[in-house]
Amino acid sequence: MSGKFDSWKSGLRVLRALVFDAYGTLFDVHSVGTLCEQLWPGKGTQLTQLWRAKQLEYSWLRSLMRRYEGFEQVTTAALGYACAALGLALEDEPRRRLLRAYRELATFPEVDGALAALKTMRIRLAILSNGSPAMLRPAVAHAGLGRLIGTVLSVNPKKTYKPAPTVYRLAVERLRVPKRAIGFVSSNCWDACGAKAFGFRTFWINRSGAPVDALGVSPDHILHSLDELPELLRVPVS
Amino acid sequence: MSGKFDSWKSGLRVLRALVFDAYGTLFDVHSVGTLCEQLWPGKGTQLTQLWRAKQLEYSWLRSLMRRYEGFEQVTTAALGYACAALGLALEDEPRRRLLRAYRELATFPEVDGALAALKTMRIRLAILSNGSPAMLRPAVAHAGLGRLIGTVLSVNPKKTYKPAPTVYRLAVERLRVPKRAIGFVSSNCWDACGAKAFGFRTFWINRSGAPVDALGVSPDHILHSLDELPELLRVPVS
Repeated sequence: MSGKFDSWKSGLRVLRALVFDAYGTLFDVHSVGTLCEQLWPGKGTQLTQLWRAKQLEYSWLRSLMRRYEGFEQVTTAALGYACAALGLALEDEPRRRLLRAYRELATFPEVDGALAALKTMRIRLAILSNGSPAMLRPAVAHAGLGRLIGTVLSVNPKKTYKPAPTVYRLAVERLRVPKRAIGFVSSNCWDACGAKAFGFRTFWINRSGAPVDALGVSPDHILHSLDELPELLRVPVS
Repeated sequence: MSGKFDSWKSGLRVLRALVFDAYGTLFDVHSVGTLCEQLWPGKGTQLTQLWRAKQLEYSWLRSLMRRYEGFEQVTTAALGYACAALGLALEDEPRRRLLRAYRELATFPEVDGALAALKTMRIRLAILSNGSPAMLRPAVAHAGLGRLIGTVLSVNPKKTYKPAPTVYRLAVERLRVPKRAIGFVSSNCWDACGAKAFGFRTFWINRSGAPVDALGVSPDHILHSLDELPELLRVPVS
């Protein structure tokens, strides 16, 4: 057991970069749900859930079909489907407002503190997101994350979406850090599993207490909040 | 318009094979839902929906992760997740019963009549399914489809799932019919879209009146039931 624990600790000690998923991990998409409820009272929750489910589904399907489209188009298409399925009329103006809300998301309350603590630990911080550069740039700026996160990577140059291995490889290529020295942090369990399958050390932020996805690989660490990450990485030198 | 209608007709006239999706298209998975409700009264519908959603999700994610596992394992894993998420204890015996039910599904009421009518039209009939050979063989035998369907293809040799183009290519390779002469029939809109993106003429059986998926390609024909297919293909020779 001691040998296993030592290798587990040393696995943490070698980390030179932490790569974060964006939506749902750093950015709280709750405010988009609030706007949905304002626009269609009583239907907000159902719409938000179906929209998100279709957004992911379309990203996976288009990747498998080899018909990549940018995440803004995928997000717009998913919104259109969700409204049609729920019998909600979607005019141009509400559509624009909802997509604009994606560029002005709040971060979760603990994000600033956790990232600031990690930044003192000589670990490079990056984002790797399905979001297009046109979506990510204003969101990062609006949330003031630019001073904490050094590198913002979109899947866009790879023309496919997570969890394709080539997407995670983008972080290795751009950060020039070997994959065993990269920690990957996501609140989407399937994303953490995909990153683990690629070879990163993975941290699943399980805010809602969901079961682990049964994909044959599991995240290395399960945390309840980003708060726990700096503490976990402060590994005592033996 | 007339020229367009002629090319539309001739597109149907060149069809030499019809390839059907299995689950939900020929086989009615409703009976699995009934068993779920018997096992967990009041939770059947929710469990069936989450199980099905996770079954598809895991097939897409494993394909993108390049971690293919057979459909029986994917289906079992999805059932395990769905039960855990809903707080339902899953013992070995109910698990076995549910997976056995997948091998003994009923077909939709119109399937026999529609396939028999198509068989008189000199069109080859085949199945192309995510199901593993071990799942498909008993299901086809139990439903007595062997006398109507000449070829049963599983995605298994390709080690990936729909809608990857290589899966649809399997039908071309095995039937030795060019793709423009193959009609693909599915009740899953995304499957019909994937087949269309590959180059088949596609028929979406939209039994529930759902909106078309917004994936950049759309099915060529939308039918309410398989009943309408023989009539549609009885194109008058001009």
